[in-house]
Amino acid sequence: MPRVSQDHLDARRRQILDGARACFARHGYEGATVRRLEEATGLSRGAIFHHFRDKETLFLALAEDDARRMADVVAEQGLVQVMRNLLAEHSEPVGEHPADWLGTRLEVSRRLRTDPDFRARWAERSEQLTAATRARLERQREAGKLRDDVEVPVLTAYLELVMEGLVSHLAMGLPADDLDPVLDLVEESVRRHRRSG
Amino acid sequence: MPRVSQDHLDARRRQILDGARACFARHGYEGATVRRLEEATGLSRGAIFHHFRDKETLFLALAEDDARRMADVVAEQGLVQVMRNLLAEHSEPVGEHPADWLGTRLEVSRRLRTDPDFRARWAERSEQLTAATRARLERQREAGKLRDDVEVPVLTAYLELVMEGLVSHLAMGLPADDLDPVLDLVEESVRRHRRSG
Repeated sequence: MPRVSQDHLDARRRQILDGARACFARHGYEGATVRRLEEATGLSRGAIFHHFRDKETLFLALAEDDARRMADVVAEQGLVQVMRNLLAEHSEPVGEHPADWLGTRLEVSRRLRTDPDFRARWAERSEQLTAATRARLERQREAGKLRDDVEVPVLTAYLELVMEGLVSHLAMGLPADDLDPVLDLVEESVRRHRRSG
Repeated sequence: MPRVSQDHLDARRRQILDGARACFARHGYEGATVRRLEEATGLSRGAIFHHFRDKETLFLALAEDDARRMADVVAEQGLVQVMRNLLAEHSEPVGEHPADWLGTRLEVSRRLRTDPDFRARWAERSEQLTAATRARLERQREAGKLRDDVEVPVLTAYLELVMEGLVSHLAMGLPADDLDPVLDLVEESVRRHRRSG
């Protein structure tokens, strides 16, 4: 019954990813030991590393999950909306604090800096977010909604730079109550200029 | 001769700061051990910690140096120019790579997230950069060079968010060849709108 097996594998994979995400968020990347990953997923190390080669691969699978989810939102609503969602999740008072997961990403950026191999694997994951952003902007341009005096790759890099700033800001736990009008400004600055003269 | 003493103290302090900066840049925050700080400064641990209470205080003094220098550039030329300078330093092929110092800041952002005390000390240092940016924008507004449909605090937070994105981007060692036109766009988006109708 290969179909059942595949469903089983998928469910097991999902179980590991969900547990691992909570574990990274709570303990950070370094602090998420194999023992803690076992506890968080309810599975043995043998089972975990049957599905994911090592902790790094597991972490990158979560980052890929994020990138895919964000790319979906980007395709429909744009990267600024992704930023608005991050901001909204961040200010919600209940539940697991998403900044904790962002914090893990921040911790990992240290690896990015010093490990070219890891950087290459990471870049692969984030490439799809760039592609989705660029495709969305191309469509906006065709629809006449985008400013037409700046190339789409520049607008893409601009939005991504602001996104990096936001992730860094939230991950460091800096106050974010005043960022909604900032995102309005960002959104407006890629739109077609108002004719006002 | 108190005057000579003060000069001597200042020179000693400067010697420690210069050595420590190179040491942090090369080895990272954790890797900058007391022994390595001794080697880099040419002074004993006794001398170093006579001037700076501990490694954290030493690091924060360097961050304060940066903030002061940046605030000076901001006052004259604005925060976008600070970003342009960061970008230019980053792409210079010779000398110590400034991304290494940025990398140390990145490493430290982990502390920022988890240590409210450290965050408070850091915030104190970066406050002067915010103040300088805001003051500069107020002057630009008075001179009629700034867009007048967005409040100065929002424009300040906007520029700071982009700055955070740039620091994070450079610190992670991501490609930065395409960021000049992005900074043009950022600069233009705080200026008075062109009348084009």
